[in-house]
Amino acid sequence: MTTTPVALTLNAGSSSLKFGLFDISGAPAVMAVGQIDSIGKAPRLKASFGPGRSPVSRDLTPAEAADHKSALATALAVLREAFPRAKASAVGHRVVHGGPSYDRPMVLTPEVMEELRRLSPFAPIHQPHNLAGIDAAVEAFPEALQVACFDTAFHRTHPKVNDVFALPREYYDKGVRRYGFHGLSYDYISGELKRIAPLIHEGRVIVAHLGNGASMCGMIGGRSVASTMGFTALDGLPMGTRTGQIDPGVIFYMVQQEGMSIDEVRQLFYSKSGLLGLSGLSNDMRALEAAGTVEANEAIDYFVFRIRRELGGLAAALGGLDALVFCGGIGENSRLIRERVCEGMGWIGLELDRERNGRNDTVISTDMSRARVMVVPTNEELVIARAAKDFLDTRG
Amino acid sequence: MTTTPVALTLNAGSSSLKFGLFDISGAPAVMAVGQIDSIGKAPRLKASFGPGRSPVSRDLTPAEAADHKSALATALAVLREAFPRAKASAVGHRVVHGGPSYDRPMVLTPEVMEELRRLSPFAPIHQPHNLAGIDAAVEAFPEALQVACFDTAFHRTHPKVNDVFALPREYYDKGVRRYGFHGLSYDYISGELKRIAPLIHEGRVIVAHLGNGASMCGMIGGRSVASTMGFTALDGLPMGTRTGQIDPGVIFYMVQQEGMSIDEVRQLFYSKSGLLGLSGLSNDMRALEAAGTVEANEAIDYFVFRIRRELGGLAAALGGLDALVFCGGIGENSRLIRERVCEGMGWIGLELDRERNGRNDTVISTDMSRARVMVVPTNEELVIARAAKDFLDTRG
Repeated sequence: MTTTPVALTLNAGSSSLKFGLFDISGAPAVMAVGQIDSIGKAPRLKASFGPGRSPVSRDLTPAEAADHKSALATALAVLREAFPRAKASAVGHRVVHGGPSYDRPMVLTPEVMEELRRLSPFAPIHQPHNLAGIDAAVEAFPEALQVACFDTAFHRTHPKVNDVFALPREYYDKGVRRYGFHGLSYDYISGELKRIAPLIHEGRVIVAHLGNGASMCGMIGGRSVASTMGFTALDGLPMGTRTGQIDPGVIFYMVQQEGMSIDEVRQLFYSKSGLLGLSGLSNDMRALEAAGTVEANEAIDYFVFRIRRELGGLAAALGGLDALVFCGGIGENSRLIRERVCEGMGWIGLELDRERNGRNDTVISTDMSRARVMVVPTNEELVIARAAKDFLDTRG
Repeated sequence: MTTTPVALTLNAGSSSLKFGLFDISGAPAVMAVGQIDSIGKAPRLKASFGPGRSPVSRDLTPAEAADHKSALATALAVLREAFPRAKASAVGHRVVHGGPSYDRPMVLTPEVMEELRRLSPFAPIHQPHNLAGIDAAVEAFPEALQVACFDTAFHRTHPKVNDVFALPREYYDKGVRRYGFHGLSYDYISGELKRIAPLIHEGRVIVAHLGNGASMCGMIGGRSVASTMGFTALDGLPMGTRTGQIDPGVIFYMVQQEGMSIDEVRQLFYSKSGLLGLSGLSNDMRALEAAGTVEANEAIDYFVFRIRRELGGLAAALGGLDALVFCGGIGENSRLIRERVCEGMGWIGLELDRERNGRNDTVISTDMSRARVMVVPTNEELVIARAAKDFLDTRG
C-alpha cells in the first residue's frame, strides 16, 4: 500500500510557528493547519484538521515550545497523531528575505542556506528564526526536499525607480533597496485573479494586504510594479505595532536630542507604535472598532488615511486603476475599513456597493463603478505547498 | 523731507544669507534682492537693484562674511551704498520652525524668541542660524520692528490624520508631528492663485515647490491640507542632496549592522544623498539634464517618479485634483521635469500642452485637460515684506 504524498509548510516568526500539511497527490489540498504562539514564554497551540475532526486549542507546557526546535517537535507530534501514516516528502518554508537575486522559490542547498545567512543583517528580527526553523526541519526530515519561498521574490519585477532610495549609488549595490514583502500573499492573489477574473488580472490592480502586518502592492498583468514596503517590513502603512512611513528625521531627533539609544528607537518603532501606539489600547483592529474611544477612532482614521494616500500613490505608479483587492485579516473581515477606504474615491473610479460590502461578496463595487473593488481571501501556505509540489514533480 | 518707509527681509540658511529691500509705502515693491553664499568659507555676494542699476556679483574676503553677523553687516553696507537714504522701519525674518502653535507671522518679542529657541531641537541645522540672524538684525536695527515668518505656519490647517505619526501618543504631545515646510512659498502661490485664478484657488490644488529643497502641498480653498514634508525638511521628495522618503529601517541597518554613527547617517541623508547621491555627479538639475549619463538619467527618473507618486497620494488626500502648480527653481524653469511629471497622467485628468510648456506659459495644460497645469513663479521674500508691512500698519 502506498502512502499519500504530503508536503509540510512552515512559517517561523520571532515567537510563533505556523504549520500546514497538504495532500499533494494532485493540486495541493490542505489536510491540517495550525500555529504555536508565544514560543519560549507561555506557549499555546491551535490546529484544525478539516471536516469531521475536532480542532485542537490548548496551552502548552514551557518545555513543549521552549524554542523553535521543540515547538516544531510538538507540532509534528500533533500532526502524526492526526495522520499517523503521513510522511512529508517535501517541507516548504516561508523565508522573509531572498535578497536582490531570488525571484522565485529555491531548493535549500548548502549554497542557498549560505546566501540566506548572508542576508540576515537585512532582516535581523525575522531571518534568523526562519533559518533556525529550516535547520530544525532538516534534522526532523533528513530525507525530505526542503524548499524556501521568499516574501521578497514577487517584487523583483519592480522597475529600478521603485527599487532604489536616493542614496549614494554604492548603497544600492550593497543591497539597500526597496525589496517589498508579503510576496507570498500577493503571489496567491495574482493567481486567484488570473483564475476568477482574467481580464482584471491583465490590468492595473492594487492589492491591500491588511493584517497585523500590512502593505499594498501595485500590479500590472499580475506582476508587481510597486509596493508600500521598502527595505524592511517597517515602511509604508501603519501596522498593529509598527509605525509604517515616518520621517527619518524623527530618528535623528530621538537619538540626538532626546538621548534614546538606536535600539530603543527600533523597539519603539517595531513594537510600541502603529495602531497600538496611536490608540494606547490595542494592536487589534477588532478591539479598536469595538472600543469607540477618541484614541481608538484616531488610530482607525490614521490607518484609513494612509491606505487612501498609498492608493493614490500606487495608482500613479500604475498609470491608473482597474481594481482594488482587499485581503489579509482586516481586509477580508472589516467592512468598516473597506467602506472608509473607498469613501469619496469616485475621482479614481471607485464606487463601493454597501450591501455587497456588508455581505463580504467577492465583488463589492457597484455595477457602475469604473474600477472593481474585490475581497479575495489570501492563502500563503498554499503558495508554499504548491512550490514544494512543483519541485518534487520536476525532480520526478 | 520724509524718507520712504522700507522693510528689510532676511533669510539665514546654514551657510547663506538672502536679503531683500522693499518699498512699503504702498503694496510692498522690491528695491533690491541679494544673497551671500559660502559664509565662513569662500564667501560670495550677488545682488540686484532693479532697472537702471548694475547688479553686483563678487567674491568677498573671508572677513566680510566670517559668520552670519559679519555677512549681515556686509549686506547692509551694500544696501546703504545703493540706497543711502533708506532706513528699515521693519525687518522680516524667515524662520524655519514655528512649532505646533504659530500659524501666522509673529512680532519678535522676548517671549516669542524664547519659544523659537525652545524649538531648536526640532530643526537643529536651521533654527540656530535663523535665530543668530535675528540677533544680528536687532543689534543693527534696534528701533525697527522685527517680524518672524515661519515655514511651518501655512500647514497648521492640516487635519490631524495628516499631522500625526503612528507613534505612542505622548510623542505627538511632545511635538513630534508632520509640520511641513516651504510654507512661505505655498502662502505666496495661494495668494497668486486667488488673484489670477480665483475659481481654481477655491478647488483642489497641488503645488510642487521644486528647488534644491523640494516638497509638494495639497490645498483646498487655498489652505494646506497635506504636505510631503513631515517632522523635518528631509521627508517626501528627493532633493539636491537629501534623501526624501526613506524606510526608517535603513537607519537601523546602517547603525546596527554597518557600524555607522547616527551623525554619519544624518550627514549622509542630508548632504550626500538625493540627486547628488544617485547621479554621483551634481545636486543641480541643470547639470543633470545636460549630462546625459546613465547615472544622471536615473537620478532624474527617480525625482520624476517620486513627484508622480506623491501627486497621486496628495490627490487622494484632496479627493481629486483641479490644478497642479509648478514653482521653485526647477518647477519654474525645467520644461523636461514638468513634461515628464505630467506624462500619462490622463487618469488623473491632466493633459500637458507641450508648446505652452515649451514657452513657459502660466497655463501649460491643453484646453481639454480636466485639471489645469500651471507655472507660477514663487516669491518668499514678498510674503515676508507683506507681513512686516501689515504689522507696521496695524501698529500705526
